[in-house]
Amino acid sequence: MYSVTVRDHVMVAHSFRGQVFGPAQRLHGATYVVDVELARPDLDADGIVVDIGRASEALHAVLAGFNYCNLDELPAFAGRNTTTEFLARVVFDRLVEAIARGDLGPGATGVEWIRVTLHESHVAAAAFEGRVGAKT
Amino acid sequence: MYSVTVRDHVMVAHSFRGQVFGPAQRLHGATYVVDVELARPDLDADGIVVDIGRASEALHAVLAGFNYCNLDELPAFAGRNTTTEFLARVVFDRLVEAIARGDLGPGATGVEWIRVTLHESHVAAAAFEGRVGAKT
Amino acid sequence: MYSVTVRDHVMVAHSFRGQVFGPAQRLHGATYVVDVELARPDLDADGIVVDIGRASEALHAVLAGFNYCNLDELPAFAGRNTTTEFLARVVFDRLVEAIARGDLGPGATGVEWIRVTLHESHVAAAAFEGRVGAKT
Amino acid sequence: MYSVTVRDHVMVAHSFRGQVFGPAQRLHGATYVVDVELARPDLDADGIVVDIGRASEALHAVLAGFNYCNLDELPAFAGRNTTTEFLARVVFDRLVEAIARGDLGPGATGVEWIRVTLHESHVAAAAFEGRVGAKT
Amino acid sequence: MYSVTVRDHVMVAHSFRGQVFGPAQRLHGATYVVDVELARPDLDADGIVVDIGRASEALHAVLAGFNYCNLDELPAFAGRNTTTEFLARVVFDRLVEAIARGDLGPGATGVEWIRVTLHESHVAAAAFEGRVGAKT
Amino acid sequence: MYSVTVRDHVMVAHSFRGQVFGPAQRLHGATYVVDVELARPDLDADGIVVDIGRASEALHAVLAGFNYCNLDELPAFAGRNTTTEFLARVVFDRLVEAIARGDLGPGATGVEWIRVTLHESHVAAAAFEGRVGAKT
Repeated sequence: MYSVTVRDHVMVAHSFRGQVFGPAQRLHGATYVVDVELARPDLDADGIVVDIGRASEALHAVLAGFNYCNLDELPAFAGRNTTTEFLARVVFDRLVEAIARGDLGPGATGVEWIRVTLHESHVAAAAFEGRVGAKT
Repeated sequence: MYSVTVRDHVMVAHSFRGQVFGPAQRLHGATYVVDVELARPDLDADGIVVDIGRASEALHAVLAGFNYCNLDELPAFAGRNTTTEFLARVVFDRLVEAIARGDLGPGATGVEWIRVTLHESHVAAAAFEGRVGAKT
Repeated sequence: MYSVTVRDHVMVAHSFRGQVFGPAQRLHGATYVVDVELARPDLDADGIVVDIGRASEALHAVLAGFNYCNLDELPAFAGRNTTTEFLARVVFDRLVEAIARGDLGPGATGVEWIRVTLHESHVAAAAFEGRVGAKT
Repeated sequence: MYSVTVRDHVMVAHSFRGQVFGPAQRLHGATYVVDVELARPDLDADGIVVDIGRASEALHAVLAGFNYCNLDELPAFAGRNTTTEFLARVVFDRLVEAIARGDLGPGATGVEWIRVTLHESHVAAAAFEGRVGAKT
Repeated sequence: MYSVTVRDHVMVAHSFRGQVFGPAQRLHGATYVVDVELARPDLDADGIVVDIGRASEALHAVLAGFNYCNLDELPAFAGRNTTTEFLARVVFDRLVEAIARGDLGPGATGVEWIRVTLHESHVAAAAFEGRVGAKT
Repeated sequence: MYSVTVRDHVMVAHSFRGQVFGPAQRLHGATYVVDVELARPDLDADGIVVDIGRASEALHAVLAGFNYCNLDELPAFAGRNTTTEFLARVVFDRLVEAIARGDLGPGATGVEWIRVTLHESHVAAAAFEGRVGAKT
């Protein structure tokens, strides 16, 4: 299996509901440094997994959808705890959609598996990974 | 698959037996920066893999069991080479026990897979990963 | 010159006033990974710059003063843009006070210079450094 | 599954053919920081996955095969785009050969799976992973 | 003293003349991960050292001047060994010019000191630092 | 001022005397990832601060003097707490001697300032820096 990984980041405010979150029930915030790994069993005719420039742009566009936002006020996340693991899944789903739309180029349809990791500090991270086809 | 990762560290002395270890047969030491990734297929009702605060505490408690120690003198490791890969397994086993005891909260029983990575320098690491249920 | 450096982090929400901040004028948030370097020309009788355990606790206490908070609502920061560089200075000032109070132990009075660095992402950081005596 | 990871680096010049590469069609260069993870289900009698010293030497020898080179001029890569993902596979294949030759010691035959990751910057990486037996 | 640091990278080919360079006399290449720290004694009216967005853009523009290039062919570097330390100075000089041109905004004239660090691998870096005014 | 930085590591056992060290009074150990920055005001005729290959070898040789050792048993450190800051000074002094001996080449006599940083974990480090001439 071959893969490429691109990195970007996003800065948001949010709060959580549930005693398990302790002081994080208050409105606070986070920088998420986001790694996206895209994998496929074979390289395309150019010798790549995917156009890394377009992959970076697609990730940037996905993150722009909620960068510098208070997630508590975004309709897309209403009624949900926007935990790091939840957001990893959001990024995964939106990248799968971007691939389906052709945003990463026609060759990106060969991508079979994606892992999205959000680093929220030097001591904590969360991730979601899955097969691209399995999503539908 | 969703996961969360927590990081901590431990500082120990030890020595190895076997020509393969060269100068590491002498009493020396190491800092291990320890990453623990806990994974499960679905999030719980709060939208998390596991209470990350309790996961951090559980990891800290496991490492406290041999932090600032000479591993050569610990009965639990008698007759064993406490290599980085061996210690990764020790941390794995003790975290599985901690989950079984409920130390990470009732929701942690959903954790199906754990990866423990010990970074011993900027150029070397070792890991053990496995299914939680497969351990018993 | 000798120094020791300790690291911790803090997660906050805030917004900025001023066109220069662009979308960061909206309520958003950040994780700041905070490095504090404390320096002095000579080591104390124990061979240390400062008790690193107490330095870590003092840093943690300073950050606890605004961790998991919306900085826009804290009276201490009223009317100020809580930029990364501004917060670096806040941490510096509060650590100087902690040293003066004896929170880092009697030996910490030998500390002459402090540098506080806040990493807000993998591509951006800000810092404040200065002499301890020069502060008064 | 147990694993050990070793890190080294290599500095090369090369150019790519294909519009997808944009300005990287020009002769340019890269530092690749290379992580190699070697995995097996059980430890050997010494308690290790593989002799980490010999693994490091084997990786260094593989990278020496094209370190400080213009990859465009190496016969082994003629007619190929030496992309990061392609080079990850090259390192994988050559390490599998090194293991077969006994360069990592007799115990290394127990290695079943290898992952090679090449970090080309702080925001991009590529990898190839596979079973060792599956290669033949 | 306050400072902000921004990070970007550049990928180049080049060769060196002089026996001290050994195999690096051959045409090879490098990724340089570039950190630029800009410092001044006081913050401006917005509470910042400099507009970090414009600082990032200015750094990106400077690096674009030789990104994806063979430095041996650039007239600006004719007859010079484009070592890491030499390139750190080049970036420094061009950023000082960018500030003088107003590319970082009018407030950036307050910047008194700049440090440019180029990381060429996980084990090597070079830097140039100096006062901004001292340059003229 | 120009500088180059090289990185290596060392793995040791030791114990400390003094209540301030708490559990670190027991025999334990550490990996120190060591960064050495060498600085001078101008580059030499080759365009470098110092031969980075020889600087790396010199650092490696200095660390080999106590790598894989129990520092409590080394005569050179008798009666001293081998704290991280103390060891940073040891590395500094021995590198200054290596430069004086010509181990880093004749050009290295231009080095005026050295900073040695020992990272003992992902959250703690210590350093010693000073002028080379000021040492005698």
